[in-house]
Amino acid sequence: MNAEIIAVGSELLLGQILNTNAKFLSEHLAEIGVNVFYQTVVGDNPNRLKQSIEVAETRADLIIFTGGLGPTKDDLTKETIANHIGKQLVQDDEAMESIEQYFIRTKRHMTENNKKQALVLEGAKVLPNDHGMAPGMFLRSGNHFYMLMPGPPYEMEPMFLNYGKQAILDELDTVEKIESRVLRFFGIGESKLETDIQHIIDGQTNPTVAPLAKEGEVTLRLTAKHPSVEEARTLLDQKEKEILDIVGDYFYGYDETSLMEALVGKLAENKQSIACAESLTAGMFQSDMAAIQGVSQMLKGGIVCYSNEAKEKLVQVKKETLEQYGAVSKECAKELAENIRELLSADIGISFTGVAGPDSLEGKPPGTVWIGIAIKGKPTKSYLLELASSRNGNRRRAVNYGCYYLLKQL
Amino acid sequence: MNAEIIAVGSELLLGQILNTNAKFLSEHLAEIGVNVFYQTVVGDNPNRLKQSIEVAETRADLIIFTGGLGPTKDDLTKETIANHIGKQLVQDDEAMESIEQYFIRTKRHMTENNKKQALVLEGAKVLPNDHGMAPGMFLRSGNHFYMLMPGPPYEMEPMFLNYGKQAILDELDTVEKIESRVLRFFGIGESKLETDIQHIIDGQTNPTVAPLAKEGEVTLRLTAKHPSVEEARTLLDQKEKEILDIVGDYFYGYDETSLMEALVGKLAENKQSIACAESLTAGMFQSDMAAIQGVSQMLKGGIVCYSNEAKEKLVQVKKETLEQYGAVSKECAKELAENIRELLSADIGISFTGVAGPDSLEGKPPGTVWIGIAIKGKPTKSYLLELASSRNGNRRRAVNYGCYYLLKQL
Repeated sequence: MNAEIIAVGSELLLGQILNTNAKFLSEHLAEIGVNVFYQTVVGDNPNRLKQSIEVAETRADLIIFTGGLGPTKDDLTKETIANHIGKQLVQDDEAMESIEQYFIRTKRHMTENNKKQALVLEGAKVLPNDHGMAPGMFLRSGNHFYMLMPGPPYEMEPMFLNYGKQAILDELDTVEKIESRVLRFFGIGESKLETDIQHIIDGQTNPTVAPLAKEGEVTLRLTAKHPSVEEARTLLDQKEKEILDIVGDYFYGYDETSLMEALVGKLAENKQSIACAESLTAGMFQSDMAAIQGVSQMLKGGIVCYSNEAKEKLVQVKKETLEQYGAVSKECAKELAENIRELLSADIGISFTGVAGPDSLEGKPPGTVWIGIAIKGKPTKSYLLELASSRNGNRRRAVNYGCYYLLKQL
Repeated sequence: MNAEIIAVGSELLLGQILNTNAKFLSEHLAEIGVNVFYQTVVGDNPNRLKQSIEVAETRADLIIFTGGLGPTKDDLTKETIANHIGKQLVQDDEAMESIEQYFIRTKRHMTENNKKQALVLEGAKVLPNDHGMAPGMFLRSGNHFYMLMPGPPYEMEPMFLNYGKQAILDELDTVEKIESRVLRFFGIGESKLETDIQHIIDGQTNPTVAPLAKEGEVTLRLTAKHPSVEEARTLLDQKEKEILDIVGDYFYGYDETSLMEALVGKLAENKQSIACAESLTAGMFQSDMAAIQGVSQMLKGGIVCYSNEAKEKLVQVKKETLEQYGAVSKECAKELAENIRELLSADIGISFTGVAGPDSLEGKPPGTVWIGIAIKGKPTKSYLLELASSRNGNRRRAVNYGCYYLLKQL
């Protein structure tokens, strides 16, 4: 089964929002072996939407629409599809009930235009919306399947995972199973990695091997097809071993595991606690860590020592260190890491100090970063980065490198 | 001039990365009055790319491609376009020189496959790549304009802003000027706002008025067309006044100004310094603030008091407060805000404490958040939020509300 994703919304064409729905759906469709060959974005315009549907029908079996199911006058997706495939819109009583409940639960007044959201395509399977009002729909008409879901990602994502995906699986009767696995690398460029494993990429058939680079990270996606899931996994295992024999030094995790998740997993395994002193990164390392559920067992917290005053008063960095070496120095990074570890009686202290940019600081160019890592019972280490990204690119990369260097030490 | 954006890359169709390029380009094309009616994503497959070009040629004057210009074997965009429009690929000496320099500058070894990046379409205007290797191209062929740019956003974005945009402007000779302005609101839902200004939306012609909701924020984009820029701006001024007379209480800023930028602007204007104690948000507020250039003048820093130990040891919250009221309480939020303000001798102290979720804490449900705001010379205020988003949605919204409540007090 081949799919096309059509996101509907003038706000996408005006560049006001990112099309995260297309990424999310593509990823989850790939997992169940549905190939997405095209993603399209079209505005809240019935004629152009109709034209997009016609194009999609020539090249996809399944067309998934996101957006345009809301209460406002420019929400026209289901009306346009109803018209195109010759179906009526009928009120779904459960959806109506759910909309009324939504307003009661969120203690808001229900305006009249919200009722329009309870209309669904005649004969469609209704996909409940557990996080909003507009229900989704799935139906077959002629040779095509149509799935309609709302635009807001916090509504669409759970709807697809809990109802939409199964509706598609029920229609699939594939013989071949598709298994895929992503290998994640850090500290090696895409060209270098690809050159190192050139013979594997050139000789790829099953599994396929696809490289991708992003913010200092490189990933390889391996995808195997086989009637037996076990055999497909064995194919992946063999190819993975072949690759890691060559570039295993840079490997840090699988699939969607971020560097931070790999780090949190390792800290949990080791039962180690961590405290942080962040100047350059100003809380980004800790905030990223706290994004992961269950992290309160290891993250004691720390200090955002953005000013030198905070470095001295809160993290007790010596005045002489700041005067003699500056805030962006190996010495300052070392004291920050050691002091924050002691202040919070943690197993590990990590620090970030540097020049985000665009201006230089203390005569050091933007992108100069020192990372300090103090682990109980080990000598403190400091790492110098010379980054060349934007202000926030430098901060983001510093956080990634911090995760990577710490991981390597655990 | 109407445009279509075609992003090329199987990693997009596999859902590995977000199509930020389409958003970026759409936004900047809208600014110069180029309408984007479609965005398309297609994989690294010459046949399907060719088919996408043919579809785009039926509905757009300008086709902008991103991606597929790199050194690897699956980068096929320029080869496919060359073939489709009947042009040769020729080496661009400046691009070749720039690629060689890039490897010298980044102290890396240049592999052979990188040379392919210096090939450009015969007769194209070359768009220099100041942040990477593959140059961009712009050319006219028949009735269409084609622009080719690399996929990585940190290469594509400066290329478009510094070279691509002007290349398009040189080809435009519009009579009508387009001016647009975004009004930003917080603390009011989309339905409520739309109902309140229904008569303005119903009667819209010039300027047009388009609402958009995102993470507790609602924006209205006003777009006016007029042969005179001044007149277009006057039309915007009039419509803005009409709208703010009704919903001005919720208005906080223009265009791309985030709540945090509005707050930083206000703090700079007032010359006020700020210190933060973050439990729930774990550094997100400070990290977001530090993303803005020049913030070191006001952001003293603060403490990420994720554990109760950090609340007591570092922010000196009384043991009795934590025992009697819990960490997620009005009393704790108040002490955190007041203490961090005093610890760093700042004008303002702000604190966040709450339950991110998915689990409850101290018998309080996920989404329960207390924000404390202590301003020198004023009584400390605390605000209760009852959010209903995901773990990180709750953290993000808490940061937004913190900005909003503080702004309202300044």
